Amino acid sequence: MENLDNIVSLCKRRGFIFQGSDVYGGMAGTWDFGPLGTALKKNIMDAWWKFFVEDRNDMYGIDAAIIMNPRTWVASGHTATFADPLVECKECKSRFRADKIADGINESVTTEEFLNTHTKCPVCGKESWGPIRKFNMMFETHVGAILPDDDEATSNKNIAYLRPETAQGIFTNYKNVVDTFYPNLPFGLAQQGKAFRNEISPRDFILRDRECSQMEVEYFVHPDTWEQNFELMRTLQHEFLENVIGLPKEKIHELEVPAEDRAHYSKRTIDFMYDYPGGEEELMGLAYRTDFDLSNIQRESGKSMEYRDKQTGESFIPHVIEPSIGVERLFLAVMTAAYTEDEINGEKRTVLKLPENLAPYKFCVSPLLKNKPELITKAKEVFDLLKNKYSHVTWDDSGNIGKRYRKQDEIGTPKCIVIDFDTLNDNTVTVRDRNTTKQTRVNIANL
Amino acid sequence: MENLDNIVSLCKRRGFIFQGSDVYGGMAGTWDFGPLGTALKKNIMDAWWKFFVEDRNDMYGIDAAIIMNPRTWVASGHTATFADPLVECKECKSRFRADKIADGINESVTTEEFLNTHTKCPVCGKESWGPIRKFNMMFETHVGAILPDDDEATSNKNIAYLRPETAQGIFTNYKNVVDTFYPNLPFGLAQQGKAFRNEISPRDFILRDRECSQMEVEYFVHPDTWEQNFELMRTLQHEFLENVIGLPKEKIHELEVPAEDRAHYSKRTIDFMYDYPGGEEELMGLAYRTDFDLSNIQRESGKSMEYRDKQTGESFIPHVIEPSIGVERLFLAVMTAAYTEDEINGEKRTVLKLPENLAPYKFCVSPLLKNKPELITKAKEVFDLLKNKYSHVTWDDSGNIGKRYRKQDEIGTPKCIVIDFDTLNDNTVTVRDRNTTKQTRVNIANL
Repeated sequence: MENLDNIVSLCKRRGFIFQGSDVYGGMAGTWDFGPLGTALKKNIMDAWWKFFVEDRNDMYGIDAAIIMNPRTWVASGHTATFADPLVECKECKSRFRADKIADGINESVTTEEFLNTHTKCPVCGKESWGPIRKFNMMFETHVGAILPDDDEATSNKNIAYLRPETAQGIFTNYKNVVDTFYPNLPFGLAQQGKAFRNEISPRDFILRDRECSQMEVEYFVHPDTWEQNFELMRTLQHEFLENVIGLPKEKIHELEVPAEDRAHYSKRTIDFMYDYPGGEEELMGLAYRTDFDLSNIQRESGKSMEYRDKQTGESFIPHVIEPSIGVERLFLAVMTAAYTEDEINGEKRTVLKLPENLAPYKFCVSPLLKNKPELITKAKEVFDLLKNKYSHVTWDDSGNIGKRYRKQDEIGTPKCIVIDFDTLNDNTVTVRDRNTTKQTRVNIANL
Repeated sequence: MENLDNIVSLCKRRGFIFQGSDVYGGMAGTWDFGPLGTALKKNIMDAWWKFFVEDRNDMYGIDAAIIMNPRTWVASGHTATFADPLVECKECKSRFRADKIADGINESVTTEEFLNTHTKCPVCGKESWGPIRKFNMMFETHVGAILPDDDEATSNKNIAYLRPETAQGIFTNYKNVVDTFYPNLPFGLAQQGKAFRNEISPRDFILRDRECSQMEVEYFVHPDTWEQNFELMRTLQHEFLENVIGLPKEKIHELEVPAEDRAHYSKRTIDFMYDYPGGEEELMGLAYRTDFDLSNIQRESGKSMEYRDKQTGESFIPHVIEPSIGVERLFLAVMTAAYTEDEINGEKRTVLKLPENLAPYKFCVSPLLKNKPELITKAKEVFDLLKNKYSHVTWDDSGNIGKRYRKQDEIGTPKCIVIDFDTLNDNTVTVRDRNTTKQTRVNIANL
């Protein structure tokens, strides 16, 4: 029922998500949001921004560039270690992520370990492998006037990368914010924006794409208080997912990541897992990053990242708690939670039970029949009335009323308002509820 | 007074805009938005989205990927022609845009024409030039598993570009939207997002950066109706700039672009110019793009881009009217219009007279003195009261009240609310107006 294929199909059929560059046969690992997906994505991102930034007094927004000075990635460790194990089939020249095509190995697999798994090439079926090589997942480009016949030294000077994570756009601005706002600890810097990972084999719809939107807070704290602030962020994440986004509590599972599986910079990580159609998958992360990033920046830039406490005069590098979420992962969790197939009076239907605050349209206004000018005129009046009050109102006079209900159910519109012949007499309309399909008569003045 | 240096300085000093990758000495042509810049930018973008998309019934949003199938740029002409004339000084090896360092030539300058200008190298002063070469401004990258020792053919197969404009993300989705929404003509597809141009010499603060945010509508119309729809979009642009964004009408000038200066795809273009501190510069564009883009996509993809009119049955490729604006250009216009130096009772001040809907903070709440706990407690109460009603409220108890007013004036906060000893007795507060500096007593209940 809520399997991935059904959701992907609905996304395409109803204009939530299309394959990237669809008209040219696609571009692997990229996705384009259609009209309804754009609206839903914006509603999700705005809800996050309001909850984590605007409604709080300890958060500051940042919107940093995607192309950063390459020293950023030396300091962060990405240049050296942001790599996947790549293996090539000597027979058919296909390339794969070694740890994804063989069982029981992880991303630090050696050539010998891989060969021992006796994996066959998923394309040609042969077992004829080259060595495991590290493939850096950062997208590389050149900034400035480089010409095709430049020598390698000239060309290398201008190498830059698309940011593989948004976090460094925050850390590199930490000092700017401290020097202009003089915030008290703890305080957070929040950012929403694109990050790029050159996945060897993008897959699982929008779960593992090459271009994704992230929403992150780096919360700067006194080292002695990291545990209580970790708990604070943990609570906020649950509140956000459950109360703001309306995900079902029982589908969210905390996974305490054991030391050996944590990123090298983290002293504690909780992955917030979600029951996706394909099984449990990471939805968001909460990491205690210590002073890893600021210390690296201090070393690489030669500039002090110390914070001086105004009360005590103590100087130290703040530690960091990071709640981080991928917009596409959250989008898919929302779609999964909302996707429902039920039966109303013996008739099967698909309905997207989106929370009202996230639904692309809140109301749909319709004339009962589409060939009666007096109904259309009246319906347009009601539409204009609502559109003046709310932005998210849509108009539908296609097909018959049953078809329209099915369409609005599929795109998650909470209420359909239908103008019929009674409306012309008594100014009442039918309001149909998406979830229950119950219809009630309401006076236009009370809409 | 409103010169660019003053605005740049304010942007940095108050946390609107920092140099990109500042901590590492910068990254030419990139800028990071600080907390106040992020808020202002978001307010501008949300106002555009509401005006051009959400409040209308003929517009659909799109949010396409930045990395597109490279055939996109063959079809659009960018691969062949999106280039600047590059010239290298043979003496010091510096590279320049030929048309920017010599007078009286344009971007299609030949080597001979350039040499005839007898321009000297701006770096070493010599006159020793190589030939003019075309430098394509698209940022190039490789998508998928490419290794350093791959041959050129393998490596070239995987070349992709960062989109140099957002428009093609819309055009390539036109058919997807028509097939899922069956919209009546005219209808528009709107998108906000990043575009990248590898400028040889980025300059003029955020006016000519390598990474910018665009807001565009492609408005699809019947070819016979292009003129009236061009007028409709022209009116909408004025309404948006003047009524929504609040730019002064007298600083906006329409420039009817003559045929020889228009982009090759355009049959009519009006540039909306703005009086920036450095002089008149393009703020936004309005172009009649004919069926240029959809016809190119039809040819390149082999898929029909025809629209079939439901009433008449007529089939044709729609024509397009495109209102397009760069967020950074609009941001700088807003800052320019708001930046004011005046004198109040003999004291000079800088004040940012931002419209209320755009100001990062609407209110600032302050205790009159910062060492009186009873004032602070009461002020926090008022702060919480307002923060519950409005998101955009800030707290300030730094320095003395005069300093705070100067700071809030500089960041454009319309109202400062000050809690003093009278507040403790009669529950009234001082409300100070940013523009007039006039103070009035208001009961807390009436805030």
